[in-house]
Amino acid sequence: MYRLYYAPGTCALATHIALEEAGAPYEAVRVDFGAQAQRSPDYLAVNPKGRVPALVTEIGTLTETPALLCFVAQRFPEAGLAPLDDPFALAQIQEFNSYLCSTVHVAHAHGRRGSRWSDDAAAHESMKRKVPSSMTECFQLIENKFLKGPWVMGERYTIADPYLFTIGTWLEGDGVDTAKLPKFMAHRAKMLERPAVQKAVAAEGTQIP
Amino acid sequence: MYRLYYAPGTCALATHIALEEAGAPYEAVRVDFGAQAQRSPDYLAVNPKGRVPALVTEIGTLTETPALLCFVAQRFPEAGLAPLDDPFALAQIQEFNSYLCSTVHVAHAHGRRGSRWSDDAAAHESMKRKVPSSMTECFQLIENKFLKGPWVMGERYTIADPYLFTIGTWLEGDGVDTAKLPKFMAHRAKMLERPAVQKAVAAEGTQIP
Repeated sequence: MYRLYYAPGTCALATHIALEEAGAPYEAVRVDFGAQAQRSPDYLAVNPKGRVPALVTEIGTLTETPALLCFVAQRFPEAGLAPLDDPFALAQIQEFNSYLCSTVHVAHAHGRRGSRWSDDAAAHESMKRKVPSSMTECFQLIENKFLKGPWVMGERYTIADPYLFTIGTWLEGDGVDTAKLPKFMAHRAKMLERPAVQKAVAAEGTQIP
Repeated sequence: MYRLYYAPGTCALATHIALEEAGAPYEAVRVDFGAQAQRSPDYLAVNPKGRVPALVTEIGTLTETPALLCFVAQRFPEAGLAPLDDPFALAQIQEFNSYLCSTVHVAHAHGRRGSRWSDDAAAHESMKRKVPSSMTECFQLIENKFLKGPWVMGERYTIADPYLFTIGTWLEGDGVDTAKLPKFMAHRAKMLERPAVQKAVAAEGTQIP
C-alpha cells in the first residue's frame, strides 16, 4: 500500500490522478498547509524539502511530480500511461512535464511563494503582478505548440495529461483568460469525464474553475 | 548525426557530457547569447522557448535537460547511464534531476533572469541578493541528503552526475562557500577526471571554478 502525501490545490493532484488511473494500491494522506504541517519534524522526516507530493513506496520515498508520474507509469505498465519502450516518445512526455515543473509551476509560484526568491515585500508584490502575463505566455505556448489534442501527446492518454490538468486548475486564479485557450479548455472538459479524475478531485475537494 | 544547441555556461553542458559518455554521434552548435541569437527566428524555429539546450535527433527536436538526459540513457543503453529497468532506481534519478531543474536552476536564475518574474528593477536587485542563501540552502540539502557519494546515486555513475556537475559550476559565481560542501567538491574533482567531461568542457570553453 503506497502512501501519497498531498495538499489540496497543489500539484500533488497529478500523481493522485495517475495512481487512480493505474489502479495502484494507495492511500492519500492530507498535509495541513494551514497549520504549516509541511514544516513539522514528522513531515520533514518523510520529505526534507517540506513540500508535497511525496510518495512512500515499498522501497522508499519519492518526490517531484515528473519523477512520480514516470514511476507510476513504469511500475504499473499494464495501465499504458506512457510509451515506455520508445525513447523519443517518452522523452517528449518528459520534456513536456519538465517544462511544467521548471517553468510553468515556477511562474505560478511567484504569486504566493515570492519569499523563496526575495526577502523584500515590495518585490513579492512586483512578482505577483507579473503572474497573469507569465502564465498566459506559458499557456499560449502550450496551446499553440505543445498540446496536440485531444490529449497532450495526441490520441494517447499519458502521464502528461493529469499534470497539465492539475496546473491548469490554477489559471483562473492566476488571472489568465481561459477563453483564449480553447484546446486547453477542451482538454480540461475531457479530463473531467474520466472516473479516475473525478475520484481524485472529489477526494481532495479540488475546486475546478 | 544529432545536433546539440548549447551556449557556454548554461545547463546544456550536462547533455553535452552525456552525449560524450554515451559515444553518441553528434555535433555541438553554439548559440550566441551575446548576440541574442536564442531569440532569432531561425533558432525559435528549432526551439520556440528560445533557450538551450535543444537536441535535434533523427525523429525530431527535444528540449529540457531531464528529458534529454533520460533520452540519451535510453537511446544508448550500452553506455549504462541509468538503471532503465528498475522503476524505483530510475525514479530516484529523475527525482534528483527534477529538483535540479525546478528548484536549484530556478534559484540560480534569479541572479540574472529576474525579468522572467518581475518588471521592476528594484525587485531584480532584491532577487539577486537572495541567490547566495538560496543556492547555499539547495546545495546543503544535496550535500547532506541526496548526494550518496562518490556519485550522486552511490557507486554507479548515472545521468544525475553530469547535471549536478554542470549546475555546480555556477556555485562560486553565485556566492556559495564551496569549502562547506566537501562531498560535492569531491564529486566535482572526480567528474573532471573523466575523459567525456574533459572533452565537453574543453569544447564549450567552460570555466571550472
